[in-house]
Amino acid sequence: MSEAVSVYEVGLRDGLQNEAAFVPTTEKIALAETLADAGLRRIELTSFVKPDWIPQLADHAIVAAQVPRRAGVAHSALVPNKKGLEGASRAGLSEIAIFMSASETHSQKNINKSVDKALVTLDEVARAALDLGMRVRAYLSVVFGCPYEGRQDPHRVLELVERLLDMGAYEVSLGDTIGVANPKQVRELLGLLAASVPLERLALHMHDTRGVALANVLAGLDAGVRTFDTAFGGLGGCPYAPGASGNLATEDAVYMLEGMGFDTGVDLDTLVAASERVAALLARSLPSKVLQAELGARRKKAARGTRAS
Amino acid sequence: MSEAVSVYEVGLRDGLQNEAAFVPTTEKIALAETLADAGLRRIELTSFVKPDWIPQLADHAIVAAQVPRRAGVAHSALVPNKKGLEGASRAGLSEIAIFMSASETHSQKNINKSVDKALVTLDEVARAALDLGMRVRAYLSVVFGCPYEGRQDPHRVLELVERLLDMGAYEVSLGDTIGVANPKQVRELLGLLAASVPLERLALHMHDTRGVALANVLAGLDAGVRTFDTAFGGLGGCPYAPGASGNLATEDAVYMLEGMGFDTGVDLDTLVAASERVAALLARSLPSKVLQAELGARRKKAARGTRAS
Repeated sequence: MSEAVSVYEVGLRDGLQNEAAFVPTTEKIALAETLADAGLRRIELTSFVKPDWIPQLADHAIVAAQVPRRAGVAHSALVPNKKGLEGASRAGLSEIAIFMSASETHSQKNINKSVDKALVTLDEVARAALDLGMRVRAYLSVVFGCPYEGRQDPHRVLELVERLLDMGAYEVSLGDTIGVANPKQVRELLGLLAASVPLERLALHMHDTRGVALANVLAGLDAGVRTFDTAFGGLGGCPYAPGASGNLATEDAVYMLEGMGFDTGVDLDTLVAASERVAALLARSLPSKVLQAELGARRKKAARGTRAS
Repeated sequence: MSEAVSVYEVGLRDGLQNEAAFVPTTEKIALAETLADAGLRRIELTSFVKPDWIPQLADHAIVAAQVPRRAGVAHSALVPNKKGLEGASRAGLSEIAIFMSASETHSQKNINKSVDKALVTLDEVARAALDLGMRVRAYLSVVFGCPYEGRQDPHRVLELVERLLDMGAYEVSLGDTIGVANPKQVRELLGLLAASVPLERLALHMHDTRGVALANVLAGLDAGVRTFDTAFGGLGGCPYAPGASGNLATEDAVYMLEGMGFDTGVDLDTLVAASERVAALLARSLPSKVLQAELGARRKKAARGTRAS
């Protein structure tokens, strides 16, 4: 029996939220289905934020309500406040994700609230969600570096992780939001956290802005983390920078994990089909290397077929 | 004092050899200069193979002869046989790289020779080079997987590494030629080799076809390897598959290594200038994530400047 690693799929939310080209609601629902078909068991569907904040996810209520539930698959959505929670609950979701910044400046710029005020809101939302019988996951962002403040104090990160767990979050996902972390930093932070927090309640959410995301996942694996957030196709890059990466690609993470003997439960061919579909809808190529290698191999095969005929 | 890691730059050879658009000879020479300006101390300039095999490198004699020598910088070239060695020697190079496959089938398909016959040729070339006072580096390719045979026997790899070292190669670079390795495999192979071979005589040459190259470098670092082959910009991808990766990008490796506290001696800004130049010459974007992040940041800054004025 190989050891399981849990892949938490964020492409439909963290990935799509940066895309200007609107993906039709029916397509989003179909993509969620294909991701589940691929074996993904934890899928973040959308974000219940104000439609004018993220027009791409303005259809959150429909997407969250209409993706068919499946035994063994946890569908969740990001919620910023109690209004968002109500929407998620009305849509019949059994899990939400709450989020906050580890950095004071990023918190102010991102949600116009101090870290302390954010904690108060999150506590209210988490409490209400738990009362509704929902599970709560928490994102702590810019943990490894903030665009305004740079490196963050690991002791402060620990304090915030503990606050989020105390609120009832079953898991805290540590975000390298701007993709600046390196494996040494990941190991040091996890070493500090592991002294106070069970590793099975931590996840890593690495962006691949500088190509180091998968090496950081390896550092996390070595430290004992067994949950990683990824986006199919490597969605999440800035669409104005061709090829630029956002989230670590699910395909690439699964390729490495399975190659190392971990069991992700994910079928790469089906996953690639989902990525191909969303790439066509966005009319752009996606950064996942496994996806590109697969498409390249197919083109080569097709060219051989043409020559042979 | 931070520990040094040696970056062996292969972009002008392993990178360019897959590019259809011919890079003018004077530009290649200028690129070699910029790479040395960036602090790279080991630069493979070209390959002394038959011009009709690799038209891109048909100017090998001029490039190898005309790149100005610098104190502290080792310029080398790939040579397949004694004729190539003579060319490299005539060009005034003090180092050559010889190469062979770990796989019998790949050897036959790539150089039309068995592994045993390749060893005989390499032994002759190495002996002659050493007699000329040149240093010899050796590549062993498809070590982690062969497109025809799949996984290679680690004991066979060890045997070939020992043969190459016995010939007088100061270093053997282990190639993941088709980019299929994973960190577990890297650790296992290095664990086996380290029992018989000094780790300072091994290098890793990882291709990023499936996005795992930098994680494999981390596995190599953890095992004690301190030399890694990379290509500026991530050159070396198949030009017919947009965005597809070949060699691990020097920028991305340097970003990770420096972030972890290793000293590579490489200045990223100068390196990015070399990558920008070659991208312009090839009229395509290159896969290095650090390069893309830098170019994206500049575009953003320029857009802000325009709005402000």
